[in-house]
Amino acid sequence: MPTRWKLTIEYHGADYCGWQRQDDVPTVQNAIEQAILGFSGQAVTLHVAGRTDAGVHARGQVAHVDLEDFSKPMQPFEVAKAINAHLRPQLISILLADPVAGDFEARYHAKGKHYRYKVINRYPFLALDRGLAWQVKKPLDLGAMREGAAVLIGHHDFSTFRDAECQAASPEKTLDSIEISAKECDESGGREILFDFRGRSFLHHMVRNIVGTLSLVGEGKWQPADVKTALEARDRTKGGPTAPACGLYLMRVEY
Amino acid sequence: MPTRWKLTIEYHGADYCGWQRQDDVPTVQNAIEQAILGFSGQAVTLHVAGRTDAGVHARGQVAHVDLEDFSKPMQPFEVAKAINAHLRPQLISILLADPVAGDFEARYHAKGKHYRYKVINRYPFLALDRGLAWQVKKPLDLGAMREGAAVLIGHHDFSTFRDAECQAASPEKTLDSIEISAKECDESGGREILFDFRGRSFLHHMVRNIVGTLSLVGEGKWQPADVKTALEARDRTKGGPTAPACGLYLMRVEY
Repeated sequence: MPTRWKLTIEYHGADYCGWQRQDDVPTVQNAIEQAILGFSGQAVTLHVAGRTDAGVHARGQVAHVDLEDFSKPMQPFEVAKAINAHLRPQLISILLADPVAGDFEARYHAKGKHYRYKVINRYPFLALDRGLAWQVKKPLDLGAMREGAAVLIGHHDFSTFRDAECQAASPEKTLDSIEISAKECDESGGREILFDFRGRSFLHHMVRNIVGTLSLVGEGKWQPADVKTALEARDRTKGGPTAPACGLYLMRVEY
Repeated sequence: MPTRWKLTIEYHGADYCGWQRQDDVPTVQNAIEQAILGFSGQAVTLHVAGRTDAGVHARGQVAHVDLEDFSKPMQPFEVAKAINAHLRPQLISILLADPVAGDFEARYHAKGKHYRYKVINRYPFLALDRGLAWQVKKPLDLGAMREGAAVLIGHHDFSTFRDAECQAASPEKTLDSIEISAKECDESGGREILFDFRGRSFLHHMVRNIVGTLSLVGEGKWQPADVKTALEARDRTKGGPTAPACGLYLMRVEY
């Protein structure tokens, strides 16, 4: 009788072609499945809470996997440690391994997700945050972006912010909150701007498409009211650009 | 008549054998001098506020340099931009270039420095913070570390925390403050612990040696009072280990 394990995972997206297993290219799923094979001899399939695209980071991705009993009993922290030993030196780390009920589903039982999008708003290029944030050179108006974001909160048809390849059955989602905060991050007056998104689930590219759109508002190219017009158009071509993957972090999945 | 420029600089220490120019190895000084040569044709020498070791990062290093007038006048931001264009794709960025008085000295006129040391306190290895923080696996007691740090504040002979290769004339320094703060940074209960040091100037390895010593207090191997005993011994062999370079950031130089 196998045990179902819930894995909580951190990774740096830069080295991987996203989460999902593919042939001939490195993905996060490939790497962890290989590490599990290495430590346990078991060829397994991970089931993830939310697939992430190439370049997207995670602080708290969740996946479940069924593992046959080990030759000798292992504590949960030993399971995490054993997988991590086989992952090294890759930029993927199993934060927690928890035995869960056999019917636990990482994707379908998720009650909420927290995504964070990090912008560094300054002119000089990035040295310390390269690959870990989106650099926006023109000054962004926080108040205007917050006003634009407010119209997106609640239950809507988010077709305007949905990637053409999105496989969700419906474009309707409920966005619980978008918090936008900023702090100075360097000696030149540069600012780190965080966009914190919370909701039960998201469409493909939804966070990045919203951030790209809000950046137009922040730069003054759009008025906050234009976000409402775009949302109501239910048409991807009426939305702003897709913000780059390197600024996006899956922070937490709630159950 | 040349103009003296004050450069404020951010860099990722991992790729460089420290600040100081050396033959045959990449250093931050080499890279910036080469970039200035590339954009202006001028072979120059940078004079830095505080040399940093291999692997140490900077958010606000300062250096001065004398540049002959350019063929056409340039605004300060254009000077920073031109140097940056020649630095790419290296992880060094000129945040500010300011023309200053001809007698300005980046090192000798510095009135204060702010160094930050970043620890990630958790067991699972680092994916997103690899190379940007020191991972300490055993739980650290903040209260004990603060108590240990308190005895170091003020004017002391810091021989216990001074590297053997330190070239300072005197081991006496005045440490204005050490602030120790922590916040949760991941889903496994991991914490980011920041040690913020402020003082006029520091001995070679002083911050890293103090952090290494405080980590012993945090782990319970030392009592806070042992820090006082170590300080008063004025003997490097009585201090704790040197914390790794990758956790150290020169945040700001004050004039």
